[in-house]
Amino acid sequence: MSLDDASTKPHDRLQAALSDDLASVATLIRARMASEHAPRIPEVTAHLVEAGGKRVRPMMTLAAARACGYDGPYHVHLAATVEFIHTATLLHDDVVDESEQRRGRPSANLLWDNQSSVLVGDYLFARSFQLMTETGRLDVLRVLSDAAATIAEGEVLQLTAAQDLSTSEDTYLKIVRGKTAALFSAATQVGGMIADVEPRVVQAFFDYGDALGISFQIVDDILDFGGVSAQTGKNVGDDFRERKLTLPLIKAIAAGGDKDRPFWVKTIEKGVQDEGDLETALDLLRSHGALEAARSDALMWSSKAKAALEEVPDDPLRDMLRDLADYVVERIA
Amino acid sequence: MSLDDASTKPHDRLQAALSDDLASVATLIRARMASEHAPRIPEVTAHLVEAGGKRVRPMMTLAAARACGYDGPYHVHLAATVEFIHTATLLHDDVVDESEQRRGRPSANLLWDNQSSVLVGDYLFARSFQLMTETGRLDVLRVLSDAAATIAEGEVLQLTAAQDLSTSEDTYLKIVRGKTAALFSAATQVGGMIADVEPRVVQAFFDYGDALGISFQIVDDILDFGGVSAQTGKNVGDDFRERKLTLPLIKAIAAGGDKDRPFWVKTIEKGVQDEGDLETALDLLRSHGALEAARSDALMWSSKAKAALEEVPDDPLRDMLRDLADYVVERIA
Repeated sequence: MSLDDASTKPHDRLQAALSDDLASVATLIRARMASEHAPRIPEVTAHLVEAGGKRVRPMMTLAAARACGYDGPYHVHLAATVEFIHTATLLHDDVVDESEQRRGRPSANLLWDNQSSVLVGDYLFARSFQLMTETGRLDVLRVLSDAAATIAEGEVLQLTAAQDLSTSEDTYLKIVRGKTAALFSAATQVGGMIADVEPRVVQAFFDYGDALGISFQIVDDILDFGGVSAQTGKNVGDDFRERKLTLPLIKAIAAGGDKDRPFWVKTIEKGVQDEGDLETALDLLRSHGALEAARSDALMWSSKAKAALEEVPDDPLRDMLRDLADYVVERIA
Repeated sequence: MSLDDASTKPHDRLQAALSDDLASVATLIRARMASEHAPRIPEVTAHLVEAGGKRVRPMMTLAAARACGYDGPYHVHLAATVEFIHTATLLHDDVVDESEQRRGRPSANLLWDNQSSVLVGDYLFARSFQLMTETGRLDVLRVLSDAAATIAEGEVLQLTAAQDLSTSEDTYLKIVRGKTAALFSAATQVGGMIADVEPRVVQAFFDYGDALGISFQIVDDILDFGGVSAQTGKNVGDDFRERKLTLPLIKAIAAGGDKDRPFWVKTIEKGVQDEGDLETALDLLRSHGALEAARSDALMWSSKAKAALEEVPDDPLRDMLRDLADYVVERIA
């Protein structure tokens, strides 16, 4: 790795190294999001797909397969599968969260309607299963259909855990494994599987994606409170307003004991949030070291992700995946 | 077939002949709708699954497999798969249609919320793919994932065709093939496939389910206008109020020409429906013979369904499927 490379974000280096494959994925996605009969489908899908998502998940599939020397055509199908599943969950998430923005643009449920978002999401789920079936690999189908179930389960769990002050770190981890880590781990795992690597390496790819996904989500949840330094600013406190029990909040509630409890009951359980309550919450998060503690967890998961890759064959793409695990936590450095 | 049998509804006879298999399907459904982490999932699913749906689709899978002498365990998996897909689409349909009732009970979106209906539906889709993957049959996976895509496509098409007076009978057929016939045809087709019958018989099962599904939906659409005699009464005119272009309406609009057009533009395209408009619509449907014409189409599709079964091995279960095609149109006799 040259010094020039080192100064480039690992995401950009992966994108450069996988540019041909990514072009094939883009072509396949465009072909499969088409619908002969219902033009609404490609309209909605294109709005989201072409809004410039970073395509991290499909890159993970491609990188894993290529790092293990895969030379067939199906890593492209699997990468497109993963992106379709991701896009479908975004469409449904925006309906569930009543979001008005996604990737800096008005969300599909706002531009069209909830109906279109639900049904086009279903279409993309079905398309993803068609794509993975084309690989002819039952082991891969098992991993991806399990992941789809885990994702939906995690989302339902998040829905029912919201506003529940008794949510534990264990439950948080289950939610995060569902809503974020399950697709990361499946994405890298099936990349290894299609390359027919030994079970030990398949497991390593799973562990990598799982730990990376968890680290990524914890970082996101810390940044939602303005980062470790807990500054107020644009979009700070969305999770607080939505009464989501994320890791920093769970840690602060546990550390605060009976003394802080009435505040959390009022703002999270009952949802009564007054002027100044977000600032009080941020003070509590800081004074109890909750953001610091969450940061330690994120770093630990990032290290786990890197350690898992030691089982993976030595390859520049493997090194970029390792650097990606560093990059994820750089946002809270 | 004894005279006693003849007086029993074909649905009841199928249920009796397949009672052991149906019990296995029920057990499998209960096991797979469970969720270790998110109790909301089995709650919502049970509300719908145990509300006493007729399980026509899983019975079609079981009947096709058994009629062809299948003796393995996987017809049960496929029947449960088909019921899960059906239940998932019902959950999402109720969100899309903002329904308040389903199977005579308050709908899940009303009892819980839209969020739960969307996410539990996603969970059941994923579960259905896990179940079908367990059969190890890629040909079956292809048929069912294609069906899932066709269903979603049909629903989107229905959404965009609503209120559109230029909707043709051809578009109607595409919508119906998606929202209804695709799962009927896939259900019977995979029953034959798992029994390893020759392609000619697989095709016959597809044709049977396709024609039965279309006939079934046309009958439903006729009954929504109070049947061929077009009587007013409870729940008559729901499709008119929702401005859905169903076959009777499409035929009436075409037959009415420029003379009736202002009325349809006002009530369907613009959605301005005043006191007495439903009665006027019913008069037009009757005077143009639109309900009669739709009835002829339903009978034709029912005959097609029966004719397709001539390719299927002679078996009491095959005869019950044939009688089912008669029964479907009995409602508009």
